[in-house]
Amino acid sequence: MKKAYILLADGFETIEALTPLDVLVRSGVEVKSIAIGAERDVRSAQGVTVKADALLSESDLSDGSALILPGGYPGYENLAKSTEVLKAVDEYYTSGRTVAAICGAPTVLAAAGVAHGKEVTSHTSVTDELTDYVVSSDDVVCDSNLITGKGAGLSLPFALAIAAALTSPEKVAEVEQKMEL
Amino acid sequence: MKKAYILLADGFETIEALTPLDVLVRSGVEVKSIAIGAERDVRSAQGVTVKADALLSESDLSDGSALILPGGYPGYENLAKSTEVLKAVDEYYTSGRTVAAICGAPTVLAAAGVAHGKEVTSHTSVTDELTDYVVSSDDVVCDSNLITGKGAGLSLPFALAIAAALTSPEKVAEVEQKMEL
Repeated sequence: MKKAYILLADGFETIEALTPLDVLVRSGVEVKSIAIGAERDVRSAQGVTVKADALLSESDLSDGSALILPGGYPGYENLAKSTEVLKAVDEYYTSGRTVAAICGAPTVLAAAGVAHGKEVTSHTSVTDELTDYVVSSDDVVCDSNLITGKGAGLSLPFALAIAAALTSPEKVAEVEQKMEL
Repeated sequence: MKKAYILLADGFETIEALTPLDVLVRSGVEVKSIAIGAERDVRSAQGVTVKADALLSESDLSDGSALILPGGYPGYENLAKSTEVLKAVDEYYTSGRTVAAICGAPTVLAAAGVAHGKEVTSHTSVTDELTDYVVSSDDVVCDSNLITGKGAGLSLPFALAIAAALTSPEKVAEVEQKMEL
């Protein structure tokens, strides 16, 4: 079974974190939510408190196939301020494993200094910060091992793209059918 | 400011509960998550633990404009087994306030004995239980003060329909733009 890690910082966008989690669990992927701060209870930008599975400081992410970075304000800024997060992003990206970022979170790729020159999409409000990338206005962009999504309204196609990268077209079709898509 | 209550039972579908919450908070609606059991920590069908804002047994829901029933297995069955939930559904429906149910949760309307003869949509797997309703295969159905959604993949249009019922077309358009829809 493949494994994916979702990084939760205070101020994460609720559905940008939890839609990938929901879809990946449905797809048979093992998903662990990881709090990047000192507490497992993490509060989303919409005021939802989620108990993460573990703390980043106590986690070994080396067995994962995908690292997922939700947006949300100030969640994505908190991700970019964490040296441990930037190190994990660099390790996943340079080893060819999937790195997925949505909304404001593609700026975390820039903070980590990875994937320069790759095509990405992001929330319109942060495109100015992505000077080292080819910025697309598409809803979801897949370029090599990078998956990016534009904003909260695209959480579901973003999640399905990650599921497609980790499983098979048949599994994604089965999940879509059960979700009534 | 209008207020909406989302009822959380163990085994709720993560995105069916939290997509309406996210979209409604973005729409300027006050949203409270209410645990129907004995603990504020409620575990979703995908294993996400969410700390609800309050317990149903300690809550007065009389100031709300909408009551939201997520699906998810066995979440929707747990909702239907709760006499307090069925009482709240009856009170909201008969007083003309919005009752919104998605996936398996339209069966909670049947358990509460409300809205017979109204048009509803639901997950394909539970349509047999909705003999007293006009069952549609549409993604989202609005009939009088009832909003129903078909399944997890339709969480976002379901949430936007609730937002439209509680706010204005202008507010929904603004929220959609910020979500990059």
